[in-house]
Amino acid sequence: MTLKNVSAMIKERKEEYLNQLFTLLRQKSISAQNIGIRDCAVLLKGMMNEVGIDTRLIETDGHPVVYGELMNSKNNFTLLIYGHYDVQPPDPLDEWVSPPFEPTVREGKIYCRGAGDNKGQLMAHVLAVKTYLDAVGELPINIKFVFEGEEENGSVNLPSFVEENKELLKADLVYSSDGSSHESDAPLMLLGVRGMLYLELTAKGGEWDNHSGNKGNIVPNPVWKLFDLLSTMRDSSGRVLIEGFYDNILPLSPKETELLKSIPYNQEEIGKKIGYPDLKMDGETYYRKLTMEPTFNICGIHSGHIGEGAKTIIPSKATLKMDIRLVVDQSPDDIYKKFCTHVKKYAPDINVKRIGSFKPSRTSAELKCVEVVTEALREAYNEEPIIQPSLGGSLPDHVWTEVLQLPSILVPYANFDQGNHSPNENIEIDYFLNGIKCTCYVIQKLGDYEKDIKKEGTISIDKGGML
Amino acid sequence: MTLKNVSAMIKERKEEYLNQLFTLLRQKSISAQNIGIRDCAVLLKGMMNEVGIDTRLIETDGHPVVYGELMNSKNNFTLLIYGHYDVQPPDPLDEWVSPPFEPTVREGKIYCRGAGDNKGQLMAHVLAVKTYLDAVGELPINIKFVFEGEEENGSVNLPSFVEENKELLKADLVYSSDGSSHESDAPLMLLGVRGMLYLELTAKGGEWDNHSGNKGNIVPNPVWKLFDLLSTMRDSSGRVLIEGFYDNILPLSPKETELLKSIPYNQEEIGKKIGYPDLKMDGETYYRKLTMEPTFNICGIHSGHIGEGAKTIIPSKATLKMDIRLVVDQSPDDIYKKFCTHVKKYAPDINVKRIGSFKPSRTSAELKCVEVVTEALREAYNEEPIIQPSLGGSLPDHVWTEVLQLPSILVPYANFDQGNHSPNENIEIDYFLNGIKCTCYVIQKLGDYEKDIKKEGTISIDKGGML
Repeated sequence: MTLKNVSAMIKERKEEYLNQLFTLLRQKSISAQNIGIRDCAVLLKGMMNEVGIDTRLIETDGHPVVYGELMNSKNNFTLLIYGHYDVQPPDPLDEWVSPPFEPTVREGKIYCRGAGDNKGQLMAHVLAVKTYLDAVGELPINIKFVFEGEEENGSVNLPSFVEENKELLKADLVYSSDGSSHESDAPLMLLGVRGMLYLELTAKGGEWDNHSGNKGNIVPNPVWKLFDLLSTMRDSSGRVLIEGFYDNILPLSPKETELLKSIPYNQEEIGKKIGYPDLKMDGETYYRKLTMEPTFNICGIHSGHIGEGAKTIIPSKATLKMDIRLVVDQSPDDIYKKFCTHVKKYAPDINVKRIGSFKPSRTSAELKCVEVVTEALREAYNEEPIIQPSLGGSLPDHVWTEVLQLPSILVPYANFDQGNHSPNENIEIDYFLNGIKCTCYVIQKLGDYEKDIKKEGTISIDKGGML
Repeated sequence: MTLKNVSAMIKERKEEYLNQLFTLLRQKSISAQNIGIRDCAVLLKGMMNEVGIDTRLIETDGHPVVYGELMNSKNNFTLLIYGHYDVQPPDPLDEWVSPPFEPTVREGKIYCRGAGDNKGQLMAHVLAVKTYLDAVGELPINIKFVFEGEEENGSVNLPSFVEENKELLKADLVYSSDGSSHESDAPLMLLGVRGMLYLELTAKGGEWDNHSGNKGNIVPNPVWKLFDLLSTMRDSSGRVLIEGFYDNILPLSPKETELLKSIPYNQEEIGKKIGYPDLKMDGETYYRKLTMEPTFNICGIHSGHIGEGAKTIIPSKATLKMDIRLVVDQSPDDIYKKFCTHVKKYAPDINVKRIGSFKPSRTSAELKCVEVVTEALREAYNEEPIIQPSLGGSLPDHVWTEVLQLPSILVPYANFDQGNHSPNENIEIDYFLNGIKCTCYVIQKLGDYEKDIKKEGTISIDKGGML
């Protein structure tokens, strides 16, 4: 059996594969600050070509897409693999135990910015192709790769890239690995994502920072302006008071509720792993709040003196960054409009800047391809996979389900406590190696699926799309 | 007439006196960050000894006091001059037109951190003594100098310094120059200060920054915790809701109301000068809010991602700095207690740290010494002085009025738009030179006053204290 060769080969090549990942990790690629992005794209392209994937950079209005394909005219089924080579900024720097761009192994984990999100997971796909080719020979399906460089920046140019390259990207299924595995360590499959709207609010007081004694009670304070506005937007229970905010949310289907209930949940374990030991809710509530309800989160706020000691000023400016996670069928455009209408009513002098957004998406759990991939996961991990109807986070999944009208399946390869977006981000070595194995199994099972279709003399491809 | 020599001499020595000030300005002395403080104290001591003032450093638990005296057993009246040689941090650095610690003259103004607050005003006293001695000969009164190095840090060690050196500091009147002149350019005399309580609030969410998608709705956000607390502390009109906050405020006396009404006020001019052209209130309201009412100000807030771009996190920590200005007879200890009681009730997991405080103070406008100094100002500036019952800002004035039981008069020498605590802090050269002149006149007039007392054969010194 070919897949046995795969496992043995991954074991043998462990050092070589780790070194490949380390090379990619050392190359900074901070999209938000445009640091090292193009160098990283070129490096990745070279690595993919080395493996035999026909790869090139495709320019966008922002950072380039690394596009690769491995096509064989004998194959009828095409898998499109998506990932991103950009990473989050590494701050706060002083909380990293080892330097953020020097991959360092401690207790079976590779610590580095991008280790889990998303370079480790992306490399697993590339190295799976290498492994499969070397262990088995040619691939039973066609594969296309879209690795973008702006995911951490809201994937601003991915929708137009996909729109403009519909023909090039023609496929039957989209497969991505991003985000974290389930805390129970069972393999996890996700069938959608929450959307997101990222906003920056700026309030102004005087034209410059003023002495708080000499001007106190006279010049308005921009932080109070933000506070006063936000207190009209959200009550202390966390409910959003913006008119129409909850209007378009679809109720959960019975199947979705059933899936939420069946996800393993260990409150204490999760509380520890997310750094919040006070966590107190049951599993269904946890997954409902995390995947099926919108958020109203503050990512950062800054005004005035934030250093040591006492500086007595009325700041001239206050800036607040928010991300609002959205669920099907909230639209970022609509929510943005409602947000602005609210600001205009309560604090018209506060500036709202839209930094980025993602639409929410969901793929039906009843599709045949979902079944095939479930089987691949079951065999690769030798464990029953968890199917979660949506990710808590956001990915540009709607470009596949909405623009390309394809089903889209997400299987995270990073460990639950990867600390993505945090200091000491990491990926467990075993998770990385299992990821390589899993992609090999997915390739194999989709190949088998294609053969079945051929035998039946007809090609009936699943239809994806929004749920 | 001796005072004529004074004016001529100041004019002649302009370059020399400016160079002396520049030397002091170039020496950083940021108390909040403990940068250059001791070097500045030693430099100042040397300059004062050069002038003939017997000067030494007196250690405290924090930064040293530069103490100097010029005593003559023939004199019975002792003036205690107070100032501070420490300065505010210079940030935001990118808003300075010229480097913050390189004195630069543009259009008749010296730009430098500390130019107005307080090195320019402090040097005016030192150079006044030099001028008076060279122009007239010996001084008609004794002078003691207390120049502290922690005023911008809340003068934390000044009260114990004064308490421990009551004998050394024995005097008849305290005279200080700090803060800004009146915007009308008329000489200004202040008879008290607002107090202040400086607090730092810290709220915590998870143990580390979490991904806002993967943990959104699960891990609490510390910024929302601060917001929710503050919304119970203050209504949107700005009124403080902490129980008992307004309890001890004394109503204005008829004399004080009269003084507030008589202060010249030009709304448009002030609005421009404070960088808030939207200013809309009458003069009495302006001065009442500025000097006779407490504030509830946010000096700074910081949490999460404050750099460019979109970082999607739930911050683990949020820090807020506040200064609450207090008026007679609010006590910082009492307000702090009430603040903490409120926090304990509404958000017991938010940490409150007391950074510093000043008691409010006021000296009666009916004292004889007030009349004498008013006369000195009238003659030095050839204009009727404005008497304001209190400064909007805070100074450790209570150590004179409460600990030493002395009257205390404040005459600011810096221009109204000195931008103290702001980028591009400055002092007008003319204001600096007039300050030197003014101190000479005060010395002379207090000397005359002493002679009158002597003639009458009795020494009856005014009593200061809290009003």
